[in-house]
Amino acid sequence: MDVVSFGESMVVLSPESSGPLRYVNRFSKSLGGAESNLIIALARLGLSVGWFSKVGDDEFGRYIVNSIRAEGVDVSRVTFEKDLSTGLLFKENYQHANPNVYYYRKNSAASTFGAEDIDEEYIKQAKVLHITGITPALSPKASEAVFAAVKIAKANGVLVSFDPNLRLKLWNIKEARQQILELARYADIIMPGIDEAELLLGIKDIDKVADYFSSQGSTIVAIKLGPKGCYLRHQSEELFVPGYSVANVIDTVGAGDGFAAGLLAGILRNESLERSGKYANGVGAMATLVPGDSEGYPYLEQLLEFIGEKQGIER
Amino acid sequence: MDVVSFGESMVVLSPESSGPLRYVNRFSKSLGGAESNLIIALARLGLSVGWFSKVGDDEFGRYIVNSIRAEGVDVSRVTFEKDLSTGLLFKENYQHANPNVYYYRKNSAASTFGAEDIDEEYIKQAKVLHITGITPALSPKASEAVFAAVKIAKANGVLVSFDPNLRLKLWNIKEARQQILELARYADIIMPGIDEAELLLGIKDIDKVADYFSSQGSTIVAIKLGPKGCYLRHQSEELFVPGYSVANVIDTVGAGDGFAAGLLAGILRNESLERSGKYANGVGAMATLVPGDSEGYPYLEQLLEFIGEKQGIER
Amino acid sequence: MDVVSFGESMVVLSPESSGPLRYVNRFSKSLGGAESNLIIALARLGLSVGWFSKVGDDEFGRYIVNSIRAEGVDVSRVTFEKDLSTGLLFKENYQHANPNVYYYRKNSAASTFGAEDIDEEYIKQAKVLHITGITPALSPKASEAVFAAVKIAKANGVLVSFDPNLRLKLWNIKEARQQILELARYADIIMPGIDEAELLLGIKDIDKVADYFSSQGSTIVAIKLGPKGCYLRHQSEELFVPGYSVANVIDTVGAGDGFAAGLLAGILRNESLERSGKYANGVGAMATLVPGDSEGYPYLEQLLEFIGEKQGIER
Amino acid sequence: MDVVSFGESMVVLSPESSGPLRYVNRFSKSLGGAESNLIIALARLGLSVGWFSKVGDDEFGRYIVNSIRAEGVDVSRVTFEKDLSTGLLFKENYQHANPNVYYYRKNSAASTFGAEDIDEEYIKQAKVLHITGITPALSPKASEAVFAAVKIAKANGVLVSFDPNLRLKLWNIKEARQQILELARYADIIMPGIDEAELLLGIKDIDKVADYFSSQGSTIVAIKLGPKGCYLRHQSEELFVPGYSVANVIDTVGAGDGFAAGLLAGILRNESLERSGKYANGVGAMATLVPGDSEGYPYLEQLLEFIGEKQGIER
Amino acid sequence: MDVVSFGESMVVLSPESSGPLRYVNRFSKSLGGAESNLIIALARLGLSVGWFSKVGDDEFGRYIVNSIRAEGVDVSRVTFEKDLSTGLLFKENYQHANPNVYYYRKNSAASTFGAEDIDEEYIKQAKVLHITGITPALSPKASEAVFAAVKIAKANGVLVSFDPNLRLKLWNIKEARQQILELARYADIIMPGIDEAELLLGIKDIDKVADYFSSQGSTIVAIKLGPKGCYLRHQSEELFVPGYSVANVIDTVGAGDGFAAGLLAGILRNESLERSGKYANGVGAMATLVPGDSEGYPYLEQLLEFIGEKQGIER
Amino acid sequence: MDVVSFGESMVVLSPESSGPLRYVNRFSKSLGGAESNLIIALARLGLSVGWFSKVGDDEFGRYIVNSIRAEGVDVSRVTFEKDLSTGLLFKENYQHANPNVYYYRKNSAASTFGAEDIDEEYIKQAKVLHITGITPALSPKASEAVFAAVKIAKANGVLVSFDPNLRLKLWNIKEARQQILELARYADIIMPGIDEAELLLGIKDIDKVADYFSSQGSTIVAIKLGPKGCYLRHQSEELFVPGYSVANVIDTVGAGDGFAAGLLAGILRNESLERSGKYANGVGAMATLVPGDSEGYPYLEQLLEFIGEKQGIER
Repeated sequence: MDVVSFGESMVVLSPESSGPLRYVNRFSKSLGGAESNLIIALARLGLSVGWFSKVGDDEFGRYIVNSIRAEGVDVSRVTFEKDLSTGLLFKENYQHANPNVYYYRKNSAASTFGAEDIDEEYIKQAKVLHITGITPALSPKASEAVFAAVKIAKANGVLVSFDPNLRLKLWNIKEARQQILELARYADIIMPGIDEAELLLGIKDIDKVADYFSSQGSTIVAIKLGPKGCYLRHQSEELFVPGYSVANVIDTVGAGDGFAAGLLAGILRNESLERSGKYANGVGAMATLVPGDSEGYPYLEQLLEFIGEKQGIER
Repeated sequence: MDVVSFGESMVVLSPESSGPLRYVNRFSKSLGGAESNLIIALARLGLSVGWFSKVGDDEFGRYIVNSIRAEGVDVSRVTFEKDLSTGLLFKENYQHANPNVYYYRKNSAASTFGAEDIDEEYIKQAKVLHITGITPALSPKASEAVFAAVKIAKANGVLVSFDPNLRLKLWNIKEARQQILELARYADIIMPGIDEAELLLGIKDIDKVADYFSSQGSTIVAIKLGPKGCYLRHQSEELFVPGYSVANVIDTVGAGDGFAAGLLAGILRNESLERSGKYANGVGAMATLVPGDSEGYPYLEQLLEFIGEKQGIER
Repeated sequence: MDVVSFGESMVVLSPESSGPLRYVNRFSKSLGGAESNLIIALARLGLSVGWFSKVGDDEFGRYIVNSIRAEGVDVSRVTFEKDLSTGLLFKENYQHANPNVYYYRKNSAASTFGAEDIDEEYIKQAKVLHITGITPALSPKASEAVFAAVKIAKANGVLVSFDPNLRLKLWNIKEARQQILELARYADIIMPGIDEAELLLGIKDIDKVADYFSSQGSTIVAIKLGPKGCYLRHQSEELFVPGYSVANVIDTVGAGDGFAAGLLAGILRNESLERSGKYANGVGAMATLVPGDSEGYPYLEQLLEFIGEKQGIER
Repeated sequence: MDVVSFGESMVVLSPESSGPLRYVNRFSKSLGGAESNLIIALARLGLSVGWFSKVGDDEFGRYIVNSIRAEGVDVSRVTFEKDLSTGLLFKENYQHANPNVYYYRKNSAASTFGAEDIDEEYIKQAKVLHITGITPALSPKASEAVFAAVKIAKANGVLVSFDPNLRLKLWNIKEARQQILELARYADIIMPGIDEAELLLGIKDIDKVADYFSSQGSTIVAIKLGPKGCYLRHQSEELFVPGYSVANVIDTVGAGDGFAAGLLAGILRNESLERSGKYANGVGAMATLVPGDSEGYPYLEQLLEFIGEKQGIER
Repeated sequence: MDVVSFGESMVVLSPESSGPLRYVNRFSKSLGGAESNLIIALARLGLSVGWFSKVGDDEFGRYIVNSIRAEGVDVSRVTFEKDLSTGLLFKENYQHANPNVYYYRKNSAASTFGAEDIDEEYIKQAKVLHITGITPALSPKASEAVFAAVKIAKANGVLVSFDPNLRLKLWNIKEARQQILELARYADIIMPGIDEAELLLGIKDIDKVADYFSSQGSTIVAIKLGPKGCYLRHQSEELFVPGYSVANVIDTVGAGDGFAAGLLAGILRNESLERSGKYANGVGAMATLVPGDSEGYPYLEQLLEFIGEKQGIER
Repeated sequence: MDVVSFGESMVVLSPESSGPLRYVNRFSKSLGGAESNLIIALARLGLSVGWFSKVGDDEFGRYIVNSIRAEGVDVSRVTFEKDLSTGLLFKENYQHANPNVYYYRKNSAASTFGAEDIDEEYIKQAKVLHITGITPALSPKASEAVFAAVKIAKANGVLVSFDPNLRLKLWNIKEARQQILELARYADIIMPGIDEAELLLGIKDIDKVADYFSSQGSTIVAIKLGPKGCYLRHQSEELFVPGYSVANVIDTVGAGDGFAAGLLAGILRNESLERSGKYANGVGAMATLVPGDSEGYPYLEQLLEFIGEKQGIER
């Protein structure tokens, strides 16, 4: 398997109209979760992938697993937990300073996923293990699971890919900094956003951010610069890859996960660093064109067309 | 004020189509909660009423409070709790043995309502305090609050009205039996369903059920017999009041709360026991004609028309 | 009570899609009415407020009253009129020169509200009576009611706040000018739009407009300048308060009423003239961010955050 | 032209959910009106037909005219009236004693249709003029128009078809009785419902009802007996035609108009009295299978299939 | 793998309201196809299954494949065909003699699936190959493919399960009879409906129908008797298994495929003939409780609960 | 009759949300087709018009014919074809390089319309026959029909109006060029887009494009320049007419057909060339303001108001 990942996926309930939720009459259901987003994006790009977690043994848990499996993702390691619920997330489209998200994920099934729930063999057989900084924020158990997983990967020559995904709604900056920087030491590939990096390191300078993560052991450092594109460093090679301009951004949720997927896809397909950066920028940009977290991720053919490099590809 | 009550109200998310929720794309939002249902029904019948509880300091909490206030209910004692969530309830319309309800109410704001949160003066100024057997099942704190409230009522000559509302999803029969029967001792008016009574007392016979609750101190015992109607006992008077047949039952949720409201309205308007029973049966039947928990409760005029006793009423 | 107001509220039927109404299949229901908009905005800002009018004794009348009461507004003086209908307003979203509104309000319950329907005591107990130039345009009876109300206010030391709200769909400029300027003589606070002022006075110059209304007796003159902000004059003090720029204006309906509410809230909270102007501009701007007339009005806390002056506020 | 008719058509706004309208969020738009219903049903059965009336010069008026024209009905005599509105009708699906309809049709364009608005030549060129007892109830002017129309018809050998359509919401029984019975004297074909007949004549007996209308000059008397079918009398011939049983009645509105259309279609196609009765019963029954007033009327081929007499028909 | 099957799956477009499609404004999308229905039902019952076919290389093809994969079905042998379209089916909910279905499946990708497209190894590795009488009706190529597939199965000891699924919309009875009876000779398990059997064989008697198919070589003959249940024969054993009564049938589409799945699941789990019949009747009945073709199929646990035989099952 | 036209109209199914169709749950139905668009636009501008074609003898065929007739278009020559289907078109709103349309129109009823299906008299009685370059692309039969029609027109002094409407999805440029340029020789009025002209002629220069078509015999050449406006040449007169700037373009489909309608309306009303160009630009611009192909076309009064030339017009 090319890539495996784990973390919490939730049912997303999106309002049918904008404004305060008290006046919204209807909500539609979709799928959310940083790790499953990335894995779905990779599946669409033709990689062989797996995702694992815990969900409630209920209709919402089944919905999550079915939706991820629909995309061609291996979900054979997911477990359904009796008496635990599946996490929910309500979105509120309120166009001013405070766009809100309402979580119903405390004590969810996924937050009880611990080190003992990991199937070591499943990680060992993969080329890459991808983790995010969201999982350690869910619970101490979940944090242990992440550290256990990266240790299994490192011990078995599986590359560790890490997206810090700093979420200050889930923990405070101090805790976040400590654990995320600790995890970064295990990362072969790390892809922080530049704002995230500043919050974590207190460094604004792109080069110095890259220096820091290189010094911690990451072979590939990809710094996300939003619509501007990204900075990439691989050993002595470094370059800036400009982003794709998009006229109508509809929904930026899932863009960062799409970026990470594009980068991993490039790397795993042995593309050049620049081309991998183009993949990353391209998937990220395309994700913003469609509502929903993962619905906008392209098939490889569509990605190549978008970035203007379509060529003979067999699917 | 005629009647005050307290307990948890929740946002109800109803599926737009029947079948397993994993295939349902949209949900609509409405209001639920046994105590607020009863209070709304009473307001519509022209009584002066108040409801109190805790809700999350969020859009769903505001929705609940606004919706109840819209009906003319005093909500001045409700508090908004930072960092606590407002309870949710997903309905699933699946027409076989196991119709499901999915709760997201664990550790909700309402479940933290304790004895210390009660405004004694608010209870004292009412003629009736209405409680249900749902609140003590929410948490030990909530249970203490119920007992504290009935003691305040008893100590101040406020009548206690009690609907056992046995919910085996929230606690087991043993715990339920102990607390509900304990609460029954404080009840001046008690209105168990006949099936509930059997589960609680192990008695099937209507007369004996009434004997039991009379012996515990209830002056008025109303035993709900579903569509058949009800049995009523007030001191030495006892009678059976036949129910109203309804061709198209659309939604039975809220019928029991409507029954209780009809009964209290009759009693507080000094109607005869029989007429109070007709009010109870009438509101209960009308509740089933409309989707939603409380939307079907009638105005007094509509109730009188439904039960065929319309007369000069000024509103 | 801080502020009372009266006038017609209507059921608004908004099309689910843009274009000529003959091709629109669905409409959604909401609440509209300049005076109830302002009163709702004030309630949300923490003031104690009341609204009165007549509505039909029908479901739409109940909807209007419930919706306004939901927001914490006193509606105890509203009456339900048998045999009179509740006004309707259909919106048409047609993006060229002629956006249309279709009224079904002729001979509505509200248009029959007359001087004899006013509860004098209700006006006397308020600090401010707010009126608009829409009510006198509804019918001669309604016009008499407005004049009667302002006279009661003036005779009892209640401040009169007046938003001209010139609606040339309801009457011609000649009639409008005569009555609005007559009403302006009673206004302690007046808040015309600059375009309105030009139509009424034939004056374009802001200073001269302010001079005119000052000369008529208004202590506070607030001239609305749209997104640019407002000009305020209070006795010898005068200043321009710049507006807040908003990226995505969704619906401007209700912005003017929000402005008026912000201004009154500032004044009644004894804020400085400038800060009152910021409140006014802020509520007006926030109203445009959300569809619906009143759904976008902020709570005080949200307003302060929006205008960048959040501070310790207890709710 | 085979048949012409005139009367008020309205925009029907139907709730998306059942229960009191104050809780209904959305409405869908469709077409209603007894005369246009009948004319549409006839068009679908292959007859050449025309309908005339006044509508507002607005989007709703255009909607009505377009919708009727869509069905192949001649609408060349309809006029669009500036400054008059098009009538509306809100339905409320409330399943108990009092299903409600809310009209917004007072002073509508159609209610101002008077005798002077009739195009005499248009009536003269038709075989049948169909009128209902709704039109005279709209206004004195409309009443005059109906009497003028039937006189034109009688003077020119055009058959008058009359459906009493007693609507006690629009006038009282005394007025209704006087005008309807007066109109009946002009009717060549009359099709009262048995309940209507009882209210108008105080007679319950079918034979005696038929005797009455025969004595007044009607050559064909068709008494509607609901799902049971109909009684028909043509000169000395009389017979009972049993109705078609329908498992799931969805919407009975429009069934009576469909019955009338079926009867006229049979007569105009020179079918036997019995077969005409089958057409009438068949169209009436099929109308109840589909929501909406006219959507369920069949094409001739579908009608024949429904009544089990399909045969070679070319369309 | 336990069972593999192949055949056409289509996008189903269901009207949001009943009545003739010309008046329907909206359609919702779901999945249809007899073979994929059965395979999904089997997956839900815990069997290991695969489905193959051709779909268009378009969004609708991807939708079909994703939806089937979501349920845990192996779709590795499905191919996406450039320049061929994916079949569509519009439903019309018109409650009288002629409920209609409108196909857009002529020359669809699936109809070009031929013998050369079969992966022999895929059939060989399965315990059961399930086919229906729909596929041979699609095109001569598709017919050849079915015969080729059953021959591969027979030659390799794979059981052939056959549901005749007579569809007279796709071919005439003469052609259908010839091919279906020919295919029946290859069937180890055959499950005709009693009406189907009569049309194919001209025999009404259940025993004689069973005799016929037994004589053609089927070891297990299951005759569907609708809500009444089924008749089963396995070698010398024969029995009648009564159906489950269902109060509210919502949608019978998919019930027959569910029956077949229940039967196969029983057989493959080595249940007794009677218990297999209960599974069949149970899945069939449960399918009717939910709108959509496959949404109502139960998980094994739910089936056992429905048929009243819940026992320790680990999922 | 002023103008007649013929060609394929289709049912358009538009997604309720943007993004890949596999994730879209609902579609709404509307009408599409270049020729019927133009004819509807002309009807709305007050001209007398007719449209003919073949549709399936099914609900979608009836929908198309009813929808076009609703607009006041003569549809008496349309035929309903048994066993042939009505064309469908699914739209996909995917905002990047490849916006997709999915056709289900192969072998549709309309594609079988041949020369023998033309009613010569119908063309002869018209002032103008309008054709597009879409019809010859549908099938060889359809192509023959177009050539037959223009020959009838030319032989009878009926003006031929031709919109090339190059659709490279339906045929390749070589075939298209040959037939379109051949048809151009018959055109009295031709209105190519400038991009189309370049593809067909290999010429970019506006003057030279006009020279070419003039040399082929067109008296009026109108070259569409998109939002910029148009270039018009009539014999020796030539001029550029600037377009109308539109803030919010919602849907450009139907703009070109609207342009053609505006031009023809100007010419047939004997307006000057410039004013005809304004009509053309105006209708084209207004079409973009409303979703749907034809819903945005204005009535004459609305057009005049839009282009700022309203004057006394009686309708």
